[in-house]
Amino acid sequence: MFFASDNWAGAHPAINERLSKESTRFASAYGSSDLDKSIELRFNEIFEREVAVFFVATGTAANSLSLASIARAGGLTFCHSEAHIIEDECGAPDFFSGMRMVAVEGPDGKMLPENLVSRIARYPQDAIHHGRAAAISMTQATEAGTVYTLEEIDAIAKIAKDNGLPLHMDGARFANALMALGCTPAEMTWKRGVDVLSFGGTKNGCWCAEAIVFFDPQLAKDFAFLRKRTAQLFSKSRFIAAQFDAYLKDDLWLSLAGHANEMANRLRAGFGSLNSARLAWPTQANEVFAILPKPSAKAAQEKGARFYDWLEPRDMPEKVAGDEALIRMVTSFATTEEDVDQFLAICASA
Amino acid sequence: MFFASDNWAGAHPAINERLSKESTRFASAYGSSDLDKSIELRFNEIFEREVAVFFVATGTAANSLSLASIARAGGLTFCHSEAHIIEDECGAPDFFSGMRMVAVEGPDGKMLPENLVSRIARYPQDAIHHGRAAAISMTQATEAGTVYTLEEIDAIAKIAKDNGLPLHMDGARFANALMALGCTPAEMTWKRGVDVLSFGGTKNGCWCAEAIVFFDPQLAKDFAFLRKRTAQLFSKSRFIAAQFDAYLKDDLWLSLAGHANEMANRLRAGFGSLNSARLAWPTQANEVFAILPKPSAKAAQEKGARFYDWLEPRDMPEKVAGDEALIRMVTSFATTEEDVDQFLAICASA
Amino acid sequence: MFFASDNWAGAHPAINERLSKESTRFASAYGSSDLDKSIELRFNEIFEREVAVFFVATGTAANSLSLASIARAGGLTFCHSEAHIIEDECGAPDFFSGMRMVAVEGPDGKMLPENLVSRIARYPQDAIHHGRAAAISMTQATEAGTVYTLEEIDAIAKIAKDNGLPLHMDGARFANALMALGCTPAEMTWKRGVDVLSFGGTKNGCWCAEAIVFFDPQLAKDFAFLRKRTAQLFSKSRFIAAQFDAYLKDDLWLSLAGHANEMANRLRAGFGSLNSARLAWPTQANEVFAILPKPSAKAAQEKGARFYDWLEPRDMPEKVAGDEALIRMVTSFATTEEDVDQFLAICASA
Amino acid sequence: MFFASDNWAGAHPAINERLSKESTRFASAYGSSDLDKSIELRFNEIFEREVAVFFVATGTAANSLSLASIARAGGLTFCHSEAHIIEDECGAPDFFSGMRMVAVEGPDGKMLPENLVSRIARYPQDAIHHGRAAAISMTQATEAGTVYTLEEIDAIAKIAKDNGLPLHMDGARFANALMALGCTPAEMTWKRGVDVLSFGGTKNGCWCAEAIVFFDPQLAKDFAFLRKRTAQLFSKSRFIAAQFDAYLKDDLWLSLAGHANEMANRLRAGFGSLNSARLAWPTQANEVFAILPKPSAKAAQEKGARFYDWLEPRDMPEKVAGDEALIRMVTSFATTEEDVDQFLAICASA
Repeated sequence: MFFASDNWAGAHPAINERLSKESTRFASAYGSSDLDKSIELRFNEIFEREVAVFFVATGTAANSLSLASIARAGGLTFCHSEAHIIEDECGAPDFFSGMRMVAVEGPDGKMLPENLVSRIARYPQDAIHHGRAAAISMTQATEAGTVYTLEEIDAIAKIAKDNGLPLHMDGARFANALMALGCTPAEMTWKRGVDVLSFGGTKNGCWCAEAIVFFDPQLAKDFAFLRKRTAQLFSKSRFIAAQFDAYLKDDLWLSLAGHANEMANRLRAGFGSLNSARLAWPTQANEVFAILPKPSAKAAQEKGARFYDWLEPRDMPEKVAGDEALIRMVTSFATTEEDVDQFLAICASA
Repeated sequence: MFFASDNWAGAHPAINERLSKESTRFASAYGSSDLDKSIELRFNEIFEREVAVFFVATGTAANSLSLASIARAGGLTFCHSEAHIIEDECGAPDFFSGMRMVAVEGPDGKMLPENLVSRIARYPQDAIHHGRAAAISMTQATEAGTVYTLEEIDAIAKIAKDNGLPLHMDGARFANALMALGCTPAEMTWKRGVDVLSFGGTKNGCWCAEAIVFFDPQLAKDFAFLRKRTAQLFSKSRFIAAQFDAYLKDDLWLSLAGHANEMANRLRAGFGSLNSARLAWPTQANEVFAILPKPSAKAAQEKGARFYDWLEPRDMPEKVAGDEALIRMVTSFATTEEDVDQFLAICASA
Repeated sequence: MFFASDNWAGAHPAINERLSKESTRFASAYGSSDLDKSIELRFNEIFEREVAVFFVATGTAANSLSLASIARAGGLTFCHSEAHIIEDECGAPDFFSGMRMVAVEGPDGKMLPENLVSRIARYPQDAIHHGRAAAISMTQATEAGTVYTLEEIDAIAKIAKDNGLPLHMDGARFANALMALGCTPAEMTWKRGVDVLSFGGTKNGCWCAEAIVFFDPQLAKDFAFLRKRTAQLFSKSRFIAAQFDAYLKDDLWLSLAGHANEMANRLRAGFGSLNSARLAWPTQANEVFAILPKPSAKAAQEKGARFYDWLEPRDMPEKVAGDEALIRMVTSFATTEEDVDQFLAICASA
Repeated sequence: MFFASDNWAGAHPAINERLSKESTRFASAYGSSDLDKSIELRFNEIFEREVAVFFVATGTAANSLSLASIARAGGLTFCHSEAHIIEDECGAPDFFSGMRMVAVEGPDGKMLPENLVSRIARYPQDAIHHGRAAAISMTQATEAGTVYTLEEIDAIAKIAKDNGLPLHMDGARFANALMALGCTPAEMTWKRGVDVLSFGGTKNGCWCAEAIVFFDPQLAKDFAFLRKRTAQLFSKSRFIAAQFDAYLKDDLWLSLAGHANEMANRLRAGFGSLNSARLAWPTQANEVFAILPKPSAKAAQEKGARFYDWLEPRDMPEKVAGDEALIRMVTSFATTEEDVDQFLAICASA
């Protein structure tokens, strides 16, 4: 009953097997091997266009270097107030990009377009003192486990375009969002106006596989230097490539994310049918946020369930009573139906 | 015949097997798992004292964050003119630490103590304009494949102590140096006066396993923040721990390095007995630098051998004739006697 | 009728005269002259204790370097949401200190203690992902022209102390606040718990005279390097010292600020008696914020008055009607009664 | 007898008078006043083309921000081994630009073209590990008091052009160099291929007047943000403009530099005729480096002369005997013939 985070899971057997195979041979280092090159081409197929792809060590690195690659002097990046880049990466995006992150409010983890517009308006291109708008970053799926619809992405992308700002997507849970929307990778990104993507594999079955995808390869012209200067260039880079090789083969990544979403849906349904609990907001990918009596939460933990009490967002206090807990449950490729059902049974009986 | 670099090798089977085993279970993230903790304790044993250990993604990160952890405002770090931190890390040490790297000359890749003393003297603690001496970094084994003797480390450490400077050791090839000297890890480090160590596993049989070891845990008090802020904290950190688990078990790391050194020695002996070639300088760990006729080098490459033409250090021109090549050969745990002998045979016959 | 900002004024004759006198002699550079030293001692007298004082070029530098001197890795600085350091310095505080600025809300430009407490609670000392609380910065007088009372400073200082955080005061309008409270410099700073002060002279009659005052000289031990590394050490530093010499002599600085406050009060009283206008919030130092019909504002501008339309703070919309303007008027040592009265007459008649 | 540095002098009466006049009026802040604008136009005249001009607080800021404006990710700036940017600015150029400074050797404070070529060749545009060549910075007049001839500037500029590198000139003593060469500002800069200039006024009669001149205004498009983000934008910027107003009027700047050079020449001639002393290298601007018996140097200091013992450059030891001192004497607009002659008399008699 490990629902603390999808990064508590191990690695999928197919990925593990591919790593084993890779370990027995020699190959050139620092991303120059044939395998590295072939995986880069695979991304072209997946995104149905020429892209520039770079592997990095962590999701924080993917976000921070994405922003560094589109930074402007004195620039500001707009993101949701609960976005990883502003609240969970210890200032790495600021340090790598030299930009400040500006919070935009909106319900369910999504920036509200009108809030985004009004925030951007405070920082015009000649605002030397305030700093100038320089980028927008959206998280898909969001930190709240919700997913921007294609129309919602369009709305954000239009604001980006109207203001001449590049659009970054933090796709730490990209595959989960894709499965939720049932669209193609291209449809969820560059066809909508996304310029740079943090493409995460770690939370979805790899042990360490993060990439940055530039939909306009020109944007990436300085990237090799930015990556090396931030100590993110692996010498045995091909072991990242090997993970992606298995991950992307035969749509493994999509089926893993589909399973995780399904398990979240099972949790959601279960909590929805409990009298003693309710959902905090919609479940759309692989995260479920529920409000339940504190004793239930405690009982579940004592019986071995792992999940996090959630820091209440700013608009939450009225929703959660003093004797209630708001908890986050995250599912992954490794979550089983048995785990879900056992967990629900405990909550129901507590 | 892959002698280009030890990072062209794959991963050792025992390490690979340990990774496979780790992949099947759940565990808490970001370095908080039991496995992470137990490996940290293993480092205490290996170094015969309480140390603080942190995993990072790359050797460049290990060096750059080591320096960041001991940085002073307006500080300068002294290192050999061919050190990785000054010539091969694209400014990452400067960026992460805010310090400038200052080159110290010396033969065979080692800082000459008198040169170090005179360089430091130019930057006293009140030198606001020049900047002030803040750290010394030595590479063991060196970029030239040589190894500082214990007495030579003592000499550098004394200079560090006399000037109140912390001493960093770049141990990307730490195990190779250890086997060359035949001493214990403690004897090569803190017993001599080393304060912080970049402990490399990647070049010696892991696919990605680098650690920073603080011999005074107090030095590490801010380190968790420095690491996160530079995007170097793995979510599935325990996969690094798993590699180190196998790496350190039953002295695997030492036997792998011993093998690599032996293969280098076999190369060295072979080149020493060729009339047409000679060694550029002593071989003490797992790198061999030889000068041979350009046609020989070319013939070897055409027959599949991989190695690098070496950028001649400043004092080399007089040593290498116009029709000669200075080449670097690096051996690893995966180098075989057959590879070495075949390579030597080609060079002999060309 | 120049009410746009107190930095539109020139320099006071006494300061100008002192600069002239200084220009005729030789003296040692970079802050080492006798004059520099004697002014440093003057600050000891003014603050009734030993302090460390450093001159810098701009108020932004004073704030940014103050924060740099008390920064922690992965640290966060808490300040009011309208503070200069978060909204008007183009990220200089972030760049120099490596910290992120976190906005705390509160009416009239002052942080509300309960908001400050709850914001700090989100960033405990082991919050590696979120970042950790590292400093509090308060502005005195505030950006809204209000002044924290001694009791209000005590409340902020207590929060700082309870959380082990250093307390910075942005005193760009320090003298105006002092005259508003009628207390001593010591009483408004270190006796309350302020650790570092940006002491501004530029807005109050100097042409360029900003200093950082450390109430614990130990805090300043690295400062000379921080200042030089950010290009803020003047070679002819004594010309800053000369300005402060005249500024501090015979309480000139206090009488200049007193005059500015008086002029603001005259404006305030005038607006208070107009039927067509009202004050947006209290006037306590040398800034007046008034709401008046847009035609009145326009008429005043056409007749030569200079002031800024104010970007409405977040809680303002309900206060200002669509046909009204919220304007900021700033007075200085150079503002005359005639200017004030003429301006009020125009507003009254429009 | 103040020969320690030209920054020990005060300010010229005409500049002082212009400052006084400026102090009595109101004007808009942050560089937007009419005076600021008119001085910017004056620079167009002086350089015979449209330029973009920005005032900053210090020479270190001028250099560091010049480099920041032309920086590339992972970039290296090549400069003489004794250049201010590498040895005397405490890492500010590295911090502001994110680049590393690479030392190029050459006699008399000038980069030797062949050395520059060979250093650049080590850092090609795809050198991700080493970093890539990104800029060249030359100092005119040099730190050794010598002046690059127009042909020597051409040689450096050609190397810059051949390698696609922007060329920066550190003109802290620009006017002195100009008078030494007897050419126009245009001829010494953009007509030779200089892209960005640190234009210094402080050492030549202002108390604080430094500017950055971009010969291609396009290069400056982000500069306003770079300057604000480094806390270098003066609120009362017009007081810098006022200094330049007097400085540039009726060629005052040229006559002041001419006088300083003449005084240096008088010193040079005097030392040349002493049996007991000799010049260390040629005197071409306003700095004289002489070798004299230590007792003479000491006697002069005891009689009130001020100058610096010079840190011997690397190729000096053979030139200076154990009982000799290498001293630097700098002249300025404020140096008198009497001072020079008195000083020479003391040295002659000691």
